[in-house]
Amino acid sequence: MLKDATAIVGIGETVFAKNLEPSELELACQAIKAALDDAGIRSAEVDALSSYTMEETLEFEVARNLGMADITFFSQVGYGGGAGCAAVGHVAMAVATGVANVGVVWRSRKRSDPRKRVWAQVSPRVTDHWKYSRPWGLVRPVDEVAMFWRRYMHEYGATRDHLANVALACRRHANRNPRAFMYQRPLTREEYMTARWISEPLCLFDNCLESDGALAVVIVRADRAADCPHPAAYIHAWSQGLTRQHQNMTNYHSDNPMQGAAWAAARNMWRQADLRPRDVKVAQIYDAFTPLIPFCLEAYGFCGEGEGGAFTENGALELGGGLPINTSGGSLSEAYIHGMNLITEGVRQIRGTSTAQVPNADVCLVTSAYVVPTSAVLLRR
Amino acid sequence: MLKDATAIVGIGETVFAKNLEPSELELACQAIKAALDDAGIRSAEVDALSSYTMEETLEFEVARNLGMADITFFSQVGYGGGAGCAAVGHVAMAVATGVANVGVVWRSRKRSDPRKRVWAQVSPRVTDHWKYSRPWGLVRPVDEVAMFWRRYMHEYGATRDHLANVALACRRHANRNPRAFMYQRPLTREEYMTARWISEPLCLFDNCLESDGALAVVIVRADRAADCPHPAAYIHAWSQGLTRQHQNMTNYHSDNPMQGAAWAAARNMWRQADLRPRDVKVAQIYDAFTPLIPFCLEAYGFCGEGEGGAFTENGALELGGGLPINTSGGSLSEAYIHGMNLITEGVRQIRGTSTAQVPNADVCLVTSAYVVPTSAVLLRR
Repeated sequence: MLKDATAIVGIGETVFAKNLEPSELELACQAIKAALDDAGIRSAEVDALSSYTMEETLEFEVARNLGMADITFFSQVGYGGGAGCAAVGHVAMAVATGVANVGVVWRSRKRSDPRKRVWAQVSPRVTDHWKYSRPWGLVRPVDEVAMFWRRYMHEYGATRDHLANVALACRRHANRNPRAFMYQRPLTREEYMTARWISEPLCLFDNCLESDGALAVVIVRADRAADCPHPAAYIHAWSQGLTRQHQNMTNYHSDNPMQGAAWAAARNMWRQADLRPRDVKVAQIYDAFTPLIPFCLEAYGFCGEGEGGAFTENGALELGGGLPINTSGGSLSEAYIHGMNLITEGVRQIRGTSTAQVPNADVCLVTSAYVVPTSAVLLRR
Repeated sequence: MLKDATAIVGIGETVFAKNLEPSELELACQAIKAALDDAGIRSAEVDALSSYTMEETLEFEVARNLGMADITFFSQVGYGGGAGCAAVGHVAMAVATGVANVGVVWRSRKRSDPRKRVWAQVSPRVTDHWKYSRPWGLVRPVDEVAMFWRRYMHEYGATRDHLANVALACRRHANRNPRAFMYQRPLTREEYMTARWISEPLCLFDNCLESDGALAVVIVRADRAADCPHPAAYIHAWSQGLTRQHQNMTNYHSDNPMQGAAWAAARNMWRQADLRPRDVKVAQIYDAFTPLIPFCLEAYGFCGEGEGGAFTENGALELGGGLPINTSGGSLSEAYIHGMNLITEGVRQIRGTSTAQVPNADVCLVTSAYVVPTSAVLLRR
């Protein structure tokens, strides 16, 4: 077991904005350099790298531009937003088992560039499993998620008010965070309820932002972590998840389509942990779309099946509530960098330096995407 | 350290041929099923998967078609032929650290399909680092390797006879292997010397085969391995390698262009090992092109700098010689499936079941590609 054998000791990020001028490689290097500076570690010590298969800055470009050591471990993880916590787990394994000493996970993305909006493009030829969904109008991820949410409303009596609870919680946290797109830009329930549809029953505010930026984290063994300037965020347990019938976005073939990849990641993460859902003081839950929050609250065991909507009531997800989530504003209101900003915010909560700091946040769950093969990591002080 | 904590307990493969009819997914499933049968393990137990980023059969397709368990670890490795041993190492880490229990590494490829010959295509726009080499005629990997070999000849007095030693050794091993393309098809030195150039000074027989097929291996923890039907091939040490100046194929910027990624993998693998090069009884060395053998003999410490050519003399690489290599025929004469057949043959040597069995082959080195970011694994009985 990897239990607390490694820790995140450095976090770094660029500004988050639309139409940033530097290349994705330059942004990646800025974020990695910032994370290394934060950890007090020179780039010449880095010997492990992991990122998303979708990441377009290659390992050798990063290593050369930052003057790293011989890289003795590198990995990629597929399925877009499912990859973030997995990449952290991969580097943690490499460092814990001694194949490398200092690992970096990064993601750099200029998504506000229309050429990068892969999901908005319909390829001239629909292949593989997509041919069973795309001809029926399920073209964008939001269309797939809208269908899952429609079923969830039907099955369990969930409402748009539950999604508004999610959107408003993230927005209120972003309002406190000067780095966030939505800093000082409040959102009212009325604005939410009257916003235009993107894919009914999901409206504009159920969708994450389109943004440019890069983030990185630095991982070392626990003994080294104790010498780093900031409190370590120990990697207590982690897992990836992919159920037998889950596909990429399209989980319609499963015995229970509501319970896909994230449920597998959750089961296997908790199996390895000394901690339980009730020990989690704050969570950073992948929020490309608001429905992923009630879905994940169930998958990771914070409530029972069908109770994810009701869980969001009475400010439970906001600072001061039972389980504050996405305290930087998350993908909905800080920036959407494929979930990497959820990981860095998880570390800030453990350090006690968030702009929406949860008191005594000694355990933080971070998850990657819900509707694709995914991953999660449990951080502790 | 992972030292002997995990082992390869199952190997499987399809036939190797040109123009195979089944899809790459079907071939992948055939090979994985064969490997699981070989290990005496049901597919419903598999919970870890790793392959090449270039692999086109997706994890979820493999998991669904074979009826696997929840997959709790999956990874991909970039850079084509550099990935094979790395994928083995990734799964070994996942299994050793308890995030998963039964792991599979696979590669399926229909390379004889002209649409799959990515390297034979010149894209309309040359991007990234390729713009510094492709306009000068370095279009195919063989062109890059020919330039490295020309320099090696110039620096160290190596000759075409050294390359013939490699080609003939692999061919003779294939002649004994009924699964090999070149079973019962001998090659003479004269045929080698008079063959047509592919990229001077490299001729037809310096190049690997174009073939279709799939292979897979199964990895479990050492305690479980003892219960499997075949002798375990323990994963003693492994590493990936990427030096600061190495690129993908183009290593011209390094202080010493002859010493790139493989040297980093070798250094870090030996650092973790109780064994030394003199303990290696047989090696499976990535042989997409013959020059990679003398290059690797130096990188992995079997001889000194510049001595790789001379090392091949007097039948050293053949059965009965000092270091028999590629005893199935390798990529040059068995089949070219991106090096996965080197890994399965390494396991056969440890088991004592190769068609060119080396007596007392208790330690076998397997390497992945030389001119790209790469990897290696040391197997022991």
